[in-house]
Amino acid sequence: MKAASIEAGEGSKAKVRGVNRGISVFDLVLRIAALVGTLASAVAMGTADQALSFSTQIVNFEAQYDDIDAFKFFVIVNAIACGYLALSIPISIFHIIRKRAGKSRVLLIFLDAIMLVFITSGASAAAAIVYLAHNGNTSTNWFSICQQYTDFCQRSAGSLIGSFGAMALLVLLIILSAIALSRG
Amino acid sequence: MKAASIEAGEGSKAKVRGVNRGISVFDLVLRIAALVGTLASAVAMGTADQALSFSTQIVNFEAQYDDIDAFKFFVIVNAIACGYLALSIPISIFHIIRKRAGKSRVLLIFLDAIMLVFITSGASAAAAIVYLAHNGNTSTNWFSICQQYTDFCQRSAGSLIGSFGAMALLVLLIILSAIALSRG
Repeated sequence: MKAASIEAGEGSKAKVRGVNRGISVFDLVLRIAALVGTLASAVAMGTADQALSFSTQIVNFEAQYDDIDAFKFFVIVNAIACGYLALSIPISIFHIIRKRAGKSRVLLIFLDAIMLVFITSGASAAAAIVYLAHNGNTSTNWFSICQQYTDFCQRSAGSLIGSFGAMALLVLLIILSAIALSRG
Repeated sequence: MKAASIEAGEGSKAKVRGVNRGISVFDLVLRIAALVGTLASAVAMGTADQALSFSTQIVNFEAQYDDIDAFKFFVIVNAIACGYLALSIPISIFHIIRKRAGKSRVLLIFLDAIMLVFITSGASAAAAIVYLAHNGNTSTNWFSICQQYTDFCQRSAGSLIGSFGAMALLVLLIILSAIALSRG
């Protein structure tokens, strides 16, 4: 009876380990997807640049991402997040091999939460400026610039997508780590 | 020998439970602090309103938080987070009584992560606009409005503090839940 119950215990342990390995593999896949998202965002915003066709020889009408501080912040934050995600891939692979690893999972939740804050703040600040560029604000006399800089506006708005995708993926990564911890 | 090892096991289990209870009490305290922070932010921004002294009878020069969509978003998001934090207090108290509760801790990590995204996005969008209101942007012809609306600018900048504090507290809450899960 005792041997049987121990065997059953071993069986359920093996099952938990199998599920945890599945979670770790999924973690790795999501991490790579988030890396691609932040990289695409940083590159798309970093290369956003539009010169207007009526630019004279004296005055150049050109919009670049680094004219707007919120966009600069967005590029920096996405580059940092991209670097972090690349560095966290070895830890994710380590979790596939060693299924327990409670401490390194807690560390990963902590760092993922910090990066979530970074990416969210960069994306939201940039989104607030993109919204303003599209709609303007009459009470503060900030006029829309998207009638002139259509390409620049489209590019900067599009570059937000990768960042918002990475946000959703990081929330998922935190949950996955928490589930693995609760089953551990 | 066996009895002694079982006793030692019971002792370490009791110790883990004691630490987990400590973590749960700390969780409750941080949760209340975050609630106060988001409430203060929502109220401070929601009551930000300045009429200029040179307002004529025909045109009213007045700045209110709801003239700027990012500030409206900030107030709504902080109100939602405040409501969530109030509702999560019973779960936090439940964790003090029942030390294990793995599933409800995972749920709390999930909801805390979502709220972290909400608060961060609201605070960052508002911060981007406050920064613009202070410094302006020459390349887009958006001029600083803080020379005129000094009180409004100070109030809206100050209201960010509670929100940024709540962000830090929510990151801590996620880590605490993760630590409790890893010890569980």
